Amino acid sequence: MDQQTLTQLTDAVLGRIFIELEASGRHVHITQAQAHTLFGHDLTPERPLSQPGQYLAKERVTLQGPKGKFYNVAVLGPPRKEAQVEISLSDAKALGIAPPIRESGSVEGTPGAILVGENGTVAIGQGVIAAKRHLHLTPDSAARFGVRDKQIVRLQTYTARPLVFDDVVVRISSAFADRAHLDFDEANACGMEKGDLGRILP
Amino acid sequence: MDQQTLTQLTDAVLGRIFIELEASGRHVHITQAQAHTLFGHDLTPERPLSQPGQYLAKERVTLQGPKGKFYNVAVLGPPRKEAQVEISLSDAKALGIAPPIRESGSVEGTPGAILVGENGTVAIGQGVIAAKRHLHLTPDSAARFGVRDKQIVRLQTYTARPLVFDDVVVRISSAFADRAHLDFDEANACGMEKGDLGRILP
Repeated sequence: MDQQTLTQLTDAVLGRIFIELEASGRHVHITQAQAHTLFGHDLTPERPLSQPGQYLAKERVTLQGPKGKFYNVAVLGPPRKEAQVEISLSDAKALGIAPPIRESGSVEGTPGAILVGENGTVAIGQGVIAAKRHLHLTPDSAARFGVRDKQIVRLQTYTARPLVFDDVVVRISSAFADRAHLDFDEANACGMEKGDLGRILP
Repeated sequence: MDQQTLTQLTDAVLGRIFIELEASGRHVHITQAQAHTLFGHDLTPERPLSQPGQYLAKERVTLQGPKGKFYNVAVLGPPRKEAQVEISLSDAKALGIAPPIRESGSVEGTPGAILVGENGTVAIGQGVIAAKRHLHLTPDSAARFGVRDKQIVRLQTYTARPLVFDDVVVRISSAFADRAHLDFDEANACGMEKGDLGRILP
């Protein structure tokens, strides 16, 4: 067996047992109209993300709250119907914003923020959340792990500071790649390094 | 039974089952000589901490790394024989320092940093750590929970984002008050609020 086949086989076996952990840094999703206001043009894809079709844009924004700001914040594409800002609770403290822990897309009644681009400024009335930790799974993987969409599971991390995350929500779509998504507080709390794995506990 | 007695009774019962969680923000411990260099005088106690004899000093320092600095960083007393700087991994990234996860007092071979006070500057050659999560227990409490000094236990948090911390080290001393100590990454990852409780898992 050559090295490449061995690597593929190993990855396939590991993928049946473990799920790769991935940390999401602070980032924003914006509408196409907001892209035009902020940058004067559509978003420009820079590189694809692990979830198929999603990309990191070349464009960056300054994210501003009542108490502080972050420069050079990632903008993810494609554009959405409504803006969403995802930050950690550490970020939230620095910005002076108190976001709830929410699933992506659930922004009703959340706090707003100010986004500044090279071409203009957008004040969003709502949309700031701390993302609820979650698993992206394909239907095949979900069936193999025996979990349903929206199910809450426990995730053991095999990391430098191992822990078990309770309250991890499962999301299933054929458009997904298998990944466990944590924010940076969570990634730091478990000492996660790129490529580290987790496992759904029974 | 009056309200005060009821409160005391409730606290006593809860204290037999649960341990109060406490988040340690970034802080420094310094020697008496370093206090004199930084401030021109001994540390001045401002308020006691939960661990008997420990206090927050009135004096503050700027903590400086290769990539950034934090102003107004807490100094804890009493002075120690060697300086120690405790930061979260989020802080570490902002400072451009890569501390190991260590128990307090174990600073051999750790990175240094620069401390700036109103009277002078101290460059420490080592002492920067990310504190390993730990339990402070009195001997009585340790006996009740059935744990030994240095034992590694699992701690369930009853918090907004519940999780189970593996790899929590037990420290026992009659000079302690019962507390589980987390850093801010860990506190944020479990959504801890002041007064939240945890429980040692069997």
